[in-house]
Amino acid sequence: MAQPVFELKEILSGKYGEDSKLIYDLADQGGELCSLRYDLTVPFARWLAMNPSIQSIKRYHIAKVYRRDQPAMTKGRMREFYQCDFDIAGNYDAMLPDAEILRITSEVFEGLGWKGRYTVKINHRKILDGIFEVCGVPQDKIRSISSAVDKLDKLPWIEVRREMTEEKALDPSVADKIGEYVILKGTRDLLTTLRSNPALSSNVSAQKGLADMELLFTYLEAFNILDKVSFDLSLARGLDYYTGVIFEVVTEGSAPPSTSTSASATSPSTSTPPPRPKSKKKPLDPDDDRSSDPSIGVGSVAAGGRYDELVGMFSGKNQIPCVGISFGVDRIFSITKAHMEADSTVRSNEVDVYVMAFGGKGFTGLLKERMEVATLLWDAGIKAEFSYKVKPKLPAQFKAAEAGGVPFAVILGEDEQAAGKVKVKELGLAEGHPEKDGVLVGLGDLVADVRRRLEVKELGDGVAEKVKELSVKGKEAST
Amino acid sequence: MAQPVFELKEILSGKYGEDSKLIYDLADQGGELCSLRYDLTVPFARWLAMNPSIQSIKRYHIAKVYRRDQPAMTKGRMREFYQCDFDIAGNYDAMLPDAEILRITSEVFEGLGWKGRYTVKINHRKILDGIFEVCGVPQDKIRSISSAVDKLDKLPWIEVRREMTEEKALDPSVADKIGEYVILKGTRDLLTTLRSNPALSSNVSAQKGLADMELLFTYLEAFNILDKVSFDLSLARGLDYYTGVIFEVVTEGSAPPSTSTSASATSPSTSTPPPRPKSKKKPLDPDDDRSSDPSIGVGSVAAGGRYDELVGMFSGKNQIPCVGISFGVDRIFSITKAHMEADSTVRSNEVDVYVMAFGGKGFTGLLKERMEVATLLWDAGIKAEFSYKVKPKLPAQFKAAEAGGVPFAVILGEDEQAAGKVKVKELGLAEGHPEKDGVLVGLGDLVADVRRRLEVKELGDGVAEKVKELSVKGKEAST
Repeated sequence: MAQPVFELKEILSGKYGEDSKLIYDLADQGGELCSLRYDLTVPFARWLAMNPSIQSIKRYHIAKVYRRDQPAMTKGRMREFYQCDFDIAGNYDAMLPDAEILRITSEVFEGLGWKGRYTVKINHRKILDGIFEVCGVPQDKIRSISSAVDKLDKLPWIEVRREMTEEKALDPSVADKIGEYVILKGTRDLLTTLRSNPALSSNVSAQKGLADMELLFTYLEAFNILDKVSFDLSLARGLDYYTGVIFEVVTEGSAPPSTSTSASATSPSTSTPPPRPKSKKKPLDPDDDRSSDPSIGVGSVAAGGRYDELVGMFSGKNQIPCVGISFGVDRIFSITKAHMEADSTVRSNEVDVYVMAFGGKGFTGLLKERMEVATLLWDAGIKAEFSYKVKPKLPAQFKAAEAGGVPFAVILGEDEQAAGKVKVKELGLAEGHPEKDGVLVGLGDLVADVRRRLEVKELGDGVAEKVKELSVKGKEAST
Repeated sequence: MAQPVFELKEILSGKYGEDSKLIYDLADQGGELCSLRYDLTVPFARWLAMNPSIQSIKRYHIAKVYRRDQPAMTKGRMREFYQCDFDIAGNYDAMLPDAEILRITSEVFEGLGWKGRYTVKINHRKILDGIFEVCGVPQDKIRSISSAVDKLDKLPWIEVRREMTEEKALDPSVADKIGEYVILKGTRDLLTTLRSNPALSSNVSAQKGLADMELLFTYLEAFNILDKVSFDLSLARGLDYYTGVIFEVVTEGSAPPSTSTSASATSPSTSTPPPRPKSKKKPLDPDDDRSSDPSIGVGSVAAGGRYDELVGMFSGKNQIPCVGISFGVDRIFSITKAHMEADSTVRSNEVDVYVMAFGGKGFTGLLKERMEVATLLWDAGIKAEFSYKVKPKLPAQFKAAEAGGVPFAVILGEDEQAAGKVKVKELGLAEGHPEKDGVLVGLGDLVADVRRRLEVKELGDGVAEKVKELSVKGKEAST
């Protein structure tokens, strides 16, 4: 499924909380005022609202989104990047689609070979809202205080607390109460802890959230992915549109650095903030460009949650509950690529055969003949290339083939030409190899011969790879 | 290869001739003034200029481009759409990369199953410029007159002539001379005709173009694609940056309608334009929204050419000659899909197994068990789905499976459950089929059983398809 990259400016307004400042607007060149999409979720909800005949759907969508942000390439923070979204829309029994989204998330990362090296943090907006109410946050500050809590993966508690009390004028004693909740992490046991808290368990919003989480844990067990999740009360998600369960996937490379984690773990009980570090002139701001700061992780690799009221915001009649997740494709790609590069080498191009020619005095370059041989190979589905020179020198042709890592050469010569033959030569053979100088092959047999050599070569590379693996394992075993 | 969708506004300025009005600008929200890319060619050239260590490269790039145009969905004219570009950059002997681009173009369409149902129109900017000079077009009007000629695939000659003489103040006798050239079409024979024209063959620009085309035809012959190309003097391409050979691929669905073709064929020799058709209040304008006008084709499906000076426009020191082609992915997809749909049916989803449950009084819904069976199938790589209801009714489950065209059901019941078994049922079997009521299978054998059934089913569908093909051929043979 696809939607346009443009949305009417008003469609994106009021959906992203404090992140709204990162929306890119188009210039007014006449016509409607448009912005570039900030995510794929709001456009999906807008599309559902416009298509009332669709009351339930599962969809995925891979496309670019845009943020007017300070780019930090090395940390995977960019102004335009790919997201892959998976969403389930429709009226269903509670927590079933939510559990399936988490199962799919686990399948995606297992499929990419991450082998459990990731954690799915989960939380529930209604539990968070209950906590904020119980701690005494005024109703009109709940979203903005939630937004501050969400920065706990990038900032130490002491900075988040300062944002709450200084920027957002929250009573310091209220902030400290929040601090005692948001350090809590666990799985099903945390649910029991929260239920045993009299204030929280009598709060209407928290009750709903706790009941949802109870069901969710049962379903995650049936789906056999309980070990992948962490129930984490510091997870809040900044966006305004979430209404239920929320989740975020972190991995080694994306996890917050241990220094700031320890800061956040020690600070919550401090009621008076310590003086600011003297080396900093202003408090840490997550909007600053700290791309070269090694203490900052790349952020989460996937995130999402339930957004039951978003479709209804565009069309009052057509209320469709939804839950979904966005995968950060570029970050996931970088991390997966790093895993792969640690294991094997990558060829710089995919050409299998370099068609070349040589000759003595009066050498014409055999250009037409090289083109015809390349055409013969192309027609047989073999990847071939040749020099774009009318009269290329032989060493230059070999150099070009070797620079590209091309495994085979087909060499045309004037004498061979007269006999209807060409030379096939595997590049990079050791001195003394019986076929080091290449083998004469009739033009009529060329395709079959090259195909056979490519198969043998591929098989050989596979065996070499296996041998390498075994020798690594052998080393591990011997240490 | 990928480049960002944003370019500095000044990078895109002055590269697209009259089409510059279709560039989307971003609002000034502080920072640099940016626009959305209009094509993938200018960003590629900008990238080459910024990376002087790269002096030669072949690349492809699939991505969206943006045009501030009046959309005409049915004709494949959209504000945002995918292009796939293939380019060759570097200093090579003349016309070799150009010929390879055309060979690749032919391979792309053959690979998509278009079986020759397309024509690659080719022409040369230097020949066109020579024609304009010989006809007496003032030097400063050459690009804008060229732009008018390019509209010949959408407008009759009489309208193009009116644009030249009225809007662009060209002497009518000059326009009429141009008209005599731009009706010419052919292959190598046209080259001979042009060479025998004394005025043209003594023009420096035309000489260069004719020499290039001579080489090109030789190479296209070696690549065995001469029959795919048409040398067409009406092809001009609107963009400013082309410097040599230009090309455009048209197919049945994209070809100009025969009525306007005949108009363009009859008009060039008319020196006085006939009165405008009375039903039209103003001359045809290619920028009008004529999406519902059946006489308009969808335009070309691929186009490109040589642009030797574009890289140098960004970096005076780093001149890299380039040639490339852009494929209109959305149009090509629509046409290919129409070909495919004519041949076979398409399933509405890809789910292979619907896991369902039923029971009498006190039926629990067996939700946890359905989830576990689905997990078992997912873990084995089998596509499975189940109802998001705690206690679903059996008919509703069958209806959901059938609506999605799911071929198999796995049915859980309380008695079967006690015996460690489930029922596997192929949906849509005829009354009286021995397995119409399904088959009991032990849970331990379920994956193997379902896998075998899916294989048999796929084989069966393949045979059915073959039988259908044969019966169509039989019909053709008998008529």
